[in-house]
Amino acid sequence: MQASIPSGTRDFGPVQAQKRKYIFNTLEQVFILHGYQPIETPAMENLSTLAGKYGDEGDQLLYKILNSRLGESKKADEVKAEFELMMGGKSFTPLLTERALRYDLTVPFARFVAMNHNNLPMPFKRYQIQPVWRADRPQKGRYREFYQCDVDVVGSNTIYNEAELVSIYNMAFEKLGLKHYQIKINHRKLLQGIALYINAEDKFIDLTIAIDKLDKIGVDGVSLELVKRGFEQSQIEKVLSIFIITGSAAEKLNQIQETISNHFIKAAVEELTQLLALSKNAKIEIDFTLARGLNYYTGCIFEVVVNDPACTFSGSISGGGRYDNLTGIFGLPYVSGVGISFGADRIYDVMEELNLFPESIIQNNSILICGMDDESVHAGFELQNILIQNNIICELYPEAAKPKKMFGYADKKGLKKVIIIGENERLSKTYTVKDMTVGEQQTISFEQLLNELTA
Amino acid sequence: MQASIPSGTRDFGPVQAQKRKYIFNTLEQVFILHGYQPIETPAMENLSTLAGKYGDEGDQLLYKILNSRLGESKKADEVKAEFELMMGGKSFTPLLTERALRYDLTVPFARFVAMNHNNLPMPFKRYQIQPVWRADRPQKGRYREFYQCDVDVVGSNTIYNEAELVSIYNMAFEKLGLKHYQIKINHRKLLQGIALYINAEDKFIDLTIAIDKLDKIGVDGVSLELVKRGFEQSQIEKVLSIFIITGSAAEKLNQIQETISNHFIKAAVEELTQLLALSKNAKIEIDFTLARGLNYYTGCIFEVVVNDPACTFSGSISGGGRYDNLTGIFGLPYVSGVGISFGADRIYDVMEELNLFPESIIQNNSILICGMDDESVHAGFELQNILIQNNIICELYPEAAKPKKMFGYADKKGLKKVIIIGENERLSKTYTVKDMTVGEQQTISFEQLLNELTA
Repeated sequence: MQASIPSGTRDFGPVQAQKRKYIFNTLEQVFILHGYQPIETPAMENLSTLAGKYGDEGDQLLYKILNSRLGESKKADEVKAEFELMMGGKSFTPLLTERALRYDLTVPFARFVAMNHNNLPMPFKRYQIQPVWRADRPQKGRYREFYQCDVDVVGSNTIYNEAELVSIYNMAFEKLGLKHYQIKINHRKLLQGIALYINAEDKFIDLTIAIDKLDKIGVDGVSLELVKRGFEQSQIEKVLSIFIITGSAAEKLNQIQETISNHFIKAAVEELTQLLALSKNAKIEIDFTLARGLNYYTGCIFEVVVNDPACTFSGSISGGGRYDNLTGIFGLPYVSGVGISFGADRIYDVMEELNLFPESIIQNNSILICGMDDESVHAGFELQNILIQNNIICELYPEAAKPKKMFGYADKKGLKKVIIIGENERLSKTYTVKDMTVGEQQTISFEQLLNELTA
Repeated sequence: MQASIPSGTRDFGPVQAQKRKYIFNTLEQVFILHGYQPIETPAMENLSTLAGKYGDEGDQLLYKILNSRLGESKKADEVKAEFELMMGGKSFTPLLTERALRYDLTVPFARFVAMNHNNLPMPFKRYQIQPVWRADRPQKGRYREFYQCDVDVVGSNTIYNEAELVSIYNMAFEKLGLKHYQIKINHRKLLQGIALYINAEDKFIDLTIAIDKLDKIGVDGVSLELVKRGFEQSQIEKVLSIFIITGSAAEKLNQIQETISNHFIKAAVEELTQLLALSKNAKIEIDFTLARGLNYYTGCIFEVVVNDPACTFSGSISGGGRYDNLTGIFGLPYVSGVGISFGADRIYDVMEELNLFPESIIQNNSILICGMDDESVHAGFELQNILIQNNIICELYPEAAKPKKMFGYADKKGLKKVIIIGENERLSKTYTVKDMTVGEQQTISFEQLLNELTA
């Protein structure tokens, strides 16, 4: 049997896993520093929790889990009927499947808040670092299993929450060493204002879905998409005229207010102006074409893109926004929230390409203890126990071997120090220590060894 | 819609999540100290990787993932035929499902080694801390999603590897504060020796499956199970006579050698004797009735049980053993490995019941900054930015509120310090600091505040 893993998924070896851990830990530190606390939710959610929250396309990308022991089901005929429905294109099939893998961390969080709000301090600030799954077509930077690092606050609708998230962006990217990025910000009410302006309030979702594709299909593509979705040429021209507004953030906000005057635009511009004032040193760009595909957003929306000339990746590494009523679906209305999600896997790809991982994060300060004969391995085992009790990272080469072989092992693992024990060392109660970096070798007593290693 | 989560799964709020993190971090430290390095594998594996590795019952407990876009399949008739097969009790249905959630971390690790052995140092020592999923009937201490914390070494078959794992047990439980536990050890060759002794070598798997149930169904149950599986009364009596061997570890090993003399017993006793000699201070019990359900074990097997009189939970919190040819299934023969798996969720339950979590691990040293009017919230936002730059964990109450409300919030979150800003404070450039523990309140300058918080 040929070993393989599902397409779109990945293994991470020791070096990759340690680099990933570095990203998780760095983000976690920043979240904690801002007073956020961790929660965890299960990988599986009830299908009814997830279905319908991510648009039609999102529904199709859910990984559904087959109900167990179907073959033993007493309702075999009903299961079969459900199956027929599914084969006919209907995706909701409770007898066949009633659970799915989570698609993001926001909907599970809203579900968590709805279930636990009586025991939570409000506003509730949480972070969550867990994998999500999407049955998407795999391609560069797009994986079927990937980690999201989310930070959200629910129970407060002031702009200070958005401003805090911008401050988290600043600190997180600074700590990770990422210099060339832009925080794109827009407001869903501004998009609603545009819909009202072109007399298409009833087609708001169609409008945002089309605009959301601008990055991928360009202006002409969006025009075509809008035609397909039933917009008239005059409406489309008005939309496109918004896209070409340029200038500083303040200038853009001024200009859209001059172009469109309705209460949606007014409310959006007011909040965006406040946010800009609170976030003076942030790399913010107001982008009227930013839409975010997810329907639950209602206020400020965020997306962070990398624009480093040295990096081939130019997509989004984070996104988020305000959702005014996401917990409402789960029976807890009027709890506004806002949050952002860091895409750890894409951040990894960018940092790898830009060589931003500090060398020190790779754990290769382990000491290798080697015995040249059986008795020496036994002596090495006892030495390992003592060193570990002294908090020294070390491992025993678990069988007698020639130094050459053991040096090869140490090299492959990037270890810096090897302790060799042979008959001579045992008889003279000494240890031969080889420094793999400079290649030097010395024979020393146990006291000298312990001094050197704990220095 | 009523919010809910799938039965057998759980959410973890901030306090639980932080306690869980403490367990993961403690185990990770111990693993790293012994020279192990992290890897990660995907949650989904190909069904062919997992099927058949955990016995018939294990196969039924796999969570299978429905292939996506089935409704669009061009092979609709074939999918339907597969579905019929599955409804007829056949569980392997590649057109309907070809992936499953991992059941443990050992088989994915073997698959990983088989795919990457050319790039791995051998022996390869890895740890892995990830969730696994089993469609088991939920009950106390048994969850459908739970974390395993595994440590394995492959590419070496000396007993030093087993001895190192025992040393990891000692250190891990010491650091976690767990005092009353026992490391039960047996050897699969010893069980093979018993099979040979009763002339049932061809029924080795049946024998181990029956013995494995001893904990749950008692001696009478095992007898019945053996009858069902076609063992004769004389064979069963011989097996039961082994169960009643008592005494110290050394005495037990002596006695079984006196009772049974064959090459399996000889090899097993030799290795167990060596292991005991290397693990003098460990809480080891030789247990001839320990079988471990999984078929891939071939050498020493381990199980750790809690036996604290103050704890209602008495099941296993860890298990493992040597597997001589697990990578062989994936095309890489002759790579012996050995490993143990800590059940983090059960360890959590035990530690919670025994009150073993240090209070200090709950992050409640965050400072709460509160403004009594809009302008003061703004001043608080600026203060938060400065404090965070000084590495002080703090959060802003994001809207103007009365002190009483804010103290209530701080209490609910267990925060120790609240900084209050009102008009007076703003005008006099001071901050009122309330110590929530003693209830005292003082008004101080910015310099005094910074001194106090960084002290």
